Amino acid sequence: MGPRPRALLFDVFGTVVDWHGSVAREVRRIGRDHGVRVDGDAFADAWRAGYRPAMDQVRRGAIPWASLDELHRANLVPLLARFGLRLSAREVTELNGIWHRLAPWPDSARGLGLLKRRFVIGSLSNGNMALLIDLAKFGRLPWDCVLSAELFRHYKPDREVYLGAAKMLAMPPRDVMLVAAHKDDLAAARRCGFQTAFVKRPFEFGRKAPRDVEPDPRSTFNAGDFIALAGQLGA
Amino acid sequence: MGPRPRALLFDVFGTVVDWHGSVAREVRRIGRDHGVRVDGDAFADAWRAGYRPAMDQVRRGAIPWASLDELHRANLVPLLARFGLRLSAREVTELNGIWHRLAPWPDSARGLGLLKRRFVIGSLSNGNMALLIDLAKFGRLPWDCVLSAELFRHYKPDREVYLGAAKMLAMPPRDVMLVAAHKDDLAAARRCGFQTAFVKRPFEFGRKAPRDVEPDPRSTFNAGDFIALAGQLGA
Repeated sequence: MGPRPRALLFDVFGTVVDWHGSVAREVRRIGRDHGVRVDGDAFADAWRAGYRPAMDQVRRGAIPWASLDELHRANLVPLLARFGLRLSAREVTELNGIWHRLAPWPDSARGLGLLKRRFVIGSLSNGNMALLIDLAKFGRLPWDCVLSAELFRHYKPDREVYLGAAKMLAMPPRDVMLVAAHKDDLAAARRCGFQTAFVKRPFEFGRKAPRDVEPDPRSTFNAGDFIALAGQLGA
Repeated sequence: MGPRPRALLFDVFGTVVDWHGSVAREVRRIGRDHGVRVDGDAFADAWRAGYRPAMDQVRRGAIPWASLDELHRANLVPLLARFGLRLSAREVTELNGIWHRLAPWPDSARGLGLLKRRFVIGSLSNGNMALLIDLAKFGRLPWDCVLSAELFRHYKPDREVYLGAAKMLAMPPRDVMLVAAHKDDLAAARRCGFQTAFVKRPFEFGRKAPRDVEPDPRSTFNAGDFIALAGQLGA
């Protein structure tokens, strides 16, 4: 175990907020309003499944920089047809905005409040700045700073994101800890010299599809939620 | 008067925090510790006087991008000799860090808290990210986002800063209001399409040197402090 971190940066989708549950609920509601029975869980997963390939196109330079809001929207349009939803342009924009109104996990706001007393806490997400700012306001997430892949025009797991964030904090990477529910994100951060903490989020893909929550032996900390992490870190 | 703004961005030095008083107190304290009588007010003003010329060198491209912490330090070293202070490298670093620990004006934290209930609130300062994050933690400033000239590698009043900030918020400039105690900053923001609010900070340069606090007829709002501004904006 290295020296204590000075800053904790958090992955957001799945780690801080419940994208699956929030998107599924919204889509079911819209379906009801339109008299269409929509499998909200399947819709949420299908929408999210387009996330990595779209970002990878940006990462490879196959398409120019596009914000996550733009990538979400591009992935949404074909999904609507597939699920039998006919929405107006305004309704599509509103549905795309659900990613700005995702419910935090029950421990998130309180756990961040505890951690904020001892550390600089910030987001480090592939979500664009406007999305992350809205999420924080919606979920009362008490960030000291909102950091986004958008600032670096690179998506995680590109190293520019982690190293760029440490530079913005004016800290060496070893003073920064990434907190995430995803082991690939943590591994990329460690390759940049970050400390890492794995947080279990078994229901990221819904209650019907519990996820791998085996501890991450490579991470300095493994915690059941942010409140437990605060305890482990003495915050 | 245009439509209501959705976001309020704040100049920081002089507008949110009392740099003059904080720097003067710190320098007097260091003088006492070293048995040297230092005119803290004169020191603070002389240090700040180097700010604009140093940034202008960056703005003109005469020197490469340097953070405000770096510019402050470059300006500090000759000042120490002039005021008869001999400090170790560690002490110089610590004194340079005073810009990360500036006291907010008495209304700042509470006024921002009121405004945060209705608007996205953020900094828009020439201070670098690490400096602004530290200031916010030190003064319990409840920003929704910390935005800095550093993100755009341009210093205010370059338009890239204002337009870049609006872009990060994903808002047209007319939906954003700059709040500042400096009319030149406000004028530059208006040229980019921002709404503006002038806040009087008569003692920015100390109680002995009260400043021009005539209302700014070009600004949509003129307020005595942030609490009054919150009242005017219905927050």
